[in-house]
Amino acid sequence: MAVENRPVRFAMAQIDTFVGDIAGNCEKVVKACKKAKANDADIVVFPEMTLTGYPIDDLVFKNSFRYQASDATRQLASALKDNGLGDLYVFVGSLGLGSLEAQEGKIWYATDHNRLFILHEGEILDTYDKHFLPTYGVFDELRLFAPGDKAVTVELFGKKFGVAICEDIWREGGTVGDLRGDGIDLLVSMNGSPYNEGKMKTRYGLAVEKGTKLGCPLMYVNQVGGQDDLVFDGGSFVMDGEGNLLAQARQFAEDMVFWDLGAAPSKDGEGDVNVCRTLGSLDEQVYSNSVLGLKDYGLKNGFDKAIVGLSGGIDSALCAEMAADAFGKENVTCIFMPSPCTSERSEEDAREFAKALGCKFEEIPISSFISAFDSLGLKDGAEENLHSRIRGMILMSYSNQHGGLVINCANKSELATGYFTMYGDSVGAYSPICDIYKSRVYKIAAYKNTKGGCISQSMLSKAPSAELHPGQKDCDVLPDYETLDAILYAYIEENKGRAEMLAAGFDRAKVDQVIGLVDKAEWKRRQCPVGPKVSLRALKHDRQIPITQHFFE
Amino acid sequence: MAVENRPVRFAMAQIDTFVGDIAGNCEKVVKACKKAKANDADIVVFPEMTLTGYPIDDLVFKNSFRYQASDATRQLASALKDNGLGDLYVFVGSLGLGSLEAQEGKIWYATDHNRLFILHEGEILDTYDKHFLPTYGVFDELRLFAPGDKAVTVELFGKKFGVAICEDIWREGGTVGDLRGDGIDLLVSMNGSPYNEGKMKTRYGLAVEKGTKLGCPLMYVNQVGGQDDLVFDGGSFVMDGEGNLLAQARQFAEDMVFWDLGAAPSKDGEGDVNVCRTLGSLDEQVYSNSVLGLKDYGLKNGFDKAIVGLSGGIDSALCAEMAADAFGKENVTCIFMPSPCTSERSEEDAREFAKALGCKFEEIPISSFISAFDSLGLKDGAEENLHSRIRGMILMSYSNQHGGLVINCANKSELATGYFTMYGDSVGAYSPICDIYKSRVYKIAAYKNTKGGCISQSMLSKAPSAELHPGQKDCDVLPDYETLDAILYAYIEENKGRAEMLAAGFDRAKVDQVIGLVDKAEWKRRQCPVGPKVSLRALKHDRQIPITQHFFE
Repeated sequence: MAVENRPVRFAMAQIDTFVGDIAGNCEKVVKACKKAKANDADIVVFPEMTLTGYPIDDLVFKNSFRYQASDATRQLASALKDNGLGDLYVFVGSLGLGSLEAQEGKIWYATDHNRLFILHEGEILDTYDKHFLPTYGVFDELRLFAPGDKAVTVELFGKKFGVAICEDIWREGGTVGDLRGDGIDLLVSMNGSPYNEGKMKTRYGLAVEKGTKLGCPLMYVNQVGGQDDLVFDGGSFVMDGEGNLLAQARQFAEDMVFWDLGAAPSKDGEGDVNVCRTLGSLDEQVYSNSVLGLKDYGLKNGFDKAIVGLSGGIDSALCAEMAADAFGKENVTCIFMPSPCTSERSEEDAREFAKALGCKFEEIPISSFISAFDSLGLKDGAEENLHSRIRGMILMSYSNQHGGLVINCANKSELATGYFTMYGDSVGAYSPICDIYKSRVYKIAAYKNTKGGCISQSMLSKAPSAELHPGQKDCDVLPDYETLDAILYAYIEENKGRAEMLAAGFDRAKVDQVIGLVDKAEWKRRQCPVGPKVSLRALKHDRQIPITQHFFE
Repeated sequence: MAVENRPVRFAMAQIDTFVGDIAGNCEKVVKACKKAKANDADIVVFPEMTLTGYPIDDLVFKNSFRYQASDATRQLASALKDNGLGDLYVFVGSLGLGSLEAQEGKIWYATDHNRLFILHEGEILDTYDKHFLPTYGVFDELRLFAPGDKAVTVELFGKKFGVAICEDIWREGGTVGDLRGDGIDLLVSMNGSPYNEGKMKTRYGLAVEKGTKLGCPLMYVNQVGGQDDLVFDGGSFVMDGEGNLLAQARQFAEDMVFWDLGAAPSKDGEGDVNVCRTLGSLDEQVYSNSVLGLKDYGLKNGFDKAIVGLSGGIDSALCAEMAADAFGKENVTCIFMPSPCTSERSEEDAREFAKALGCKFEEIPISSFISAFDSLGLKDGAEENLHSRIRGMILMSYSNQHGGLVINCANKSELATGYFTMYGDSVGAYSPICDIYKSRVYKIAAYKNTKGGCISQSMLSKAPSAELHPGQKDCDVLPDYETLDAILYAYIEENKGRAEMLAAGFDRAKVDQVIGLVDKAEWKRRQCPVGPKVSLRALKHDRQIPITQHFFE
């Protein structure tokens, strides 16, 4: 079908897919295509691995799953046609079957492909296989896929389009490099790109780089949603080589933005065509990332309610705010569990906060439970851990009795240093702040307060304490959080060794203390997974190391 | 130095290395070389990645670690010479540095090598880089290393030796294939090969295959010891292409076996030269594998004592036997925690077992602790989980107060089906039986009884029960274990889908029940890691999947 006297209209279908739910993902595609068609779109572009969800990890080695994924592509093409959507050109991602033989008996290399399919009139019009397979950080694609090595262009409506999948545009050369001189009008990339702070800017940079080299804009369609340990932020866009933003979809929410090839952009609030939605501040992005990750973790694991153990401190309060935004405040129960070590200020802060948030509130003092264990004669750390474990047990009991996901409230500084009790405050499957350092927690809380949050000045200003013995403060055993977090950042995010950190001017004693804590805590962290594997990215694949020495010197 | 009028003597130095402890591993190498020299060895061969330990995972991306590993090779060569061991030819494994640039900034492919070094007279005489990089199951080497592509032979003492690293001999072709026609006298392979049942037979098969093709024996030197989730069984050997075993080291223990090239084998009990040690039965191997994994998990994480929650059932009894063999019975404390739901028979069985085992024994009834939580009004599953969590809390409290590693006692059938309480019986960092199905647990227990074990006939014969409510039996909610384990084996070990299982004759309702349990329990398992990641190997890299449907059809 030719498009007469009007530009080619693209729909960027930024949907939240679900790993393993092939039927459900196909339904989402059909639904999105109906909307696209109703808005006169010609071409609909979905995120990477649309039908299987992403990332599928070792599901790729399960034959029953592979065949289902492969069959689904043809079935979807038929379903689109049956629904009167056959005239659309639909770009979806799925598994491209490689050799069956390699998957049987001794598997030692991957043969399947991470594939883009173009569906049209009930058929598969063309395919493209991802060339660059990321295998670092959270990615393991060399394990799972064989690389494609053919650049692909398609000509539709008198225009020529190049295609790419995610990592293909992050590297020099490869199949995208081969498009140089092909005179394409647009490079269409489908992506499964997880969020980290400032990532949109990096992506824009790729658009400028590729746009300059290929002489055309880049269409970047990204997955959105949480999947286990990852959060994909969406934020699909079109940008040309001069850095002009031609269209921009929302971050952290499903969205469909239409873009007419060659037309001028419009502003947010002026509809969905050629629109450039306004992105939030970095603080807002980090907050939204946590809420989306938590919401989808619940959704995809069968929870629509949440339980938060409220201590009166800032971490659990921020997590409660996030839970309220993820599940609705009426679906959040805050449980305050004071002990004789709990200060009056914490008690007031917790009650006032829960009241202001408007969630359900339960107060369950734990003194009698603690006393019940007097016969064990526990002392010092063992007794303190008992307090923490009694609270964990109450939260889990409440969850078992009434339903709801127990939210873990550990921040990244605590996780890194092992400043938590195994099976105590470490209960709960997901911490929405586990990738946020303590000093950043304050900033994110302050941001939330500008958007109706109710974290009190008292919570924001008091000295952090686990309140497991009277008068306890975190800084009794840890460096102050600004210093601690700076060292942690160098060690974990920047992957620096001891010598590099000392050369950077950090205090020797503090560096040794922090390295010692992080290395030693690796054992505890492995036992108490509380969410994003990326939370301690540098350590993600670390094995146990000798805890008596600092070998990163 | 020439060897006059006698064969070339090899020492197979089967040592237990420690990931990250480069200095400690180097010390072990020097010590082993002293022994080799004292026994007139000419050539000493160590396991794969000797100096770094194996597997090192993402430590390969930490520059401070890389440089230390790289420097260590030269330092070791000097140290050997300084210790009067310079005339030995020492084959050790370590990291071979690739490009620094690729490791800085954006890392997207690995450039370092998994390298074999031949040290002699204070120098590095030659090196070989592993060609085939396993990236399936528990291995991720394409992530970590660049492949080498040059076959290497060395001529020493008038003989010619080919070299290989582990996976190189498991595949067709590659650098080992290139040795064909080179007229080598021996293929020397250093390995880091984890145990699974029957693996020695498979390795012997490789020796016959390569020996036939290359016309020479294979020397297979394997790592021994537990490292986090893996257990390496050692069992180093020399075998020729006709399948004649020329030398065989112990499994599941450090060992040094000498082999004179061209000499006839001798029998176990006749010294360490050309000796063929007798291997245990498969049941013995599985048992020993568990003990070694547990012992090294403790050793490498700083524990030399163990705590076992004894229920009176067979799982905890077998784990206590294993703990006694790993740490010594005087270092094992069994804690029996009866509730009103505990049967008299369990009480008798637990007491008698602990007495027979000769470990420390504590009885801590939990009725009063349960009553203390009456105010929570818990019912049904929530109440049952409370019992389990109180026991978990007591075990952890005991560990915090007195030291010692809490042993998790979950078997593979329970883990697969999610038949455990989060933060209850799932506490404890390591279950020595987590890769053993329940029906196999009985066989391993019976085996142990033939070697002085004291698991009573009553424990072996009674119906399995969690005893969380009166009269409860596992078979109330699960298929009988023989049936359950057969379905689990097909689904997990054989990676079969639902249709394949039905075609194999399994009952439809039971298959659906079991698939449903396994898929749904993935969420729980992720929260409660209790040891070997390989325990549910097929699911190792699975992401969360829709728990409302069985998509493996």
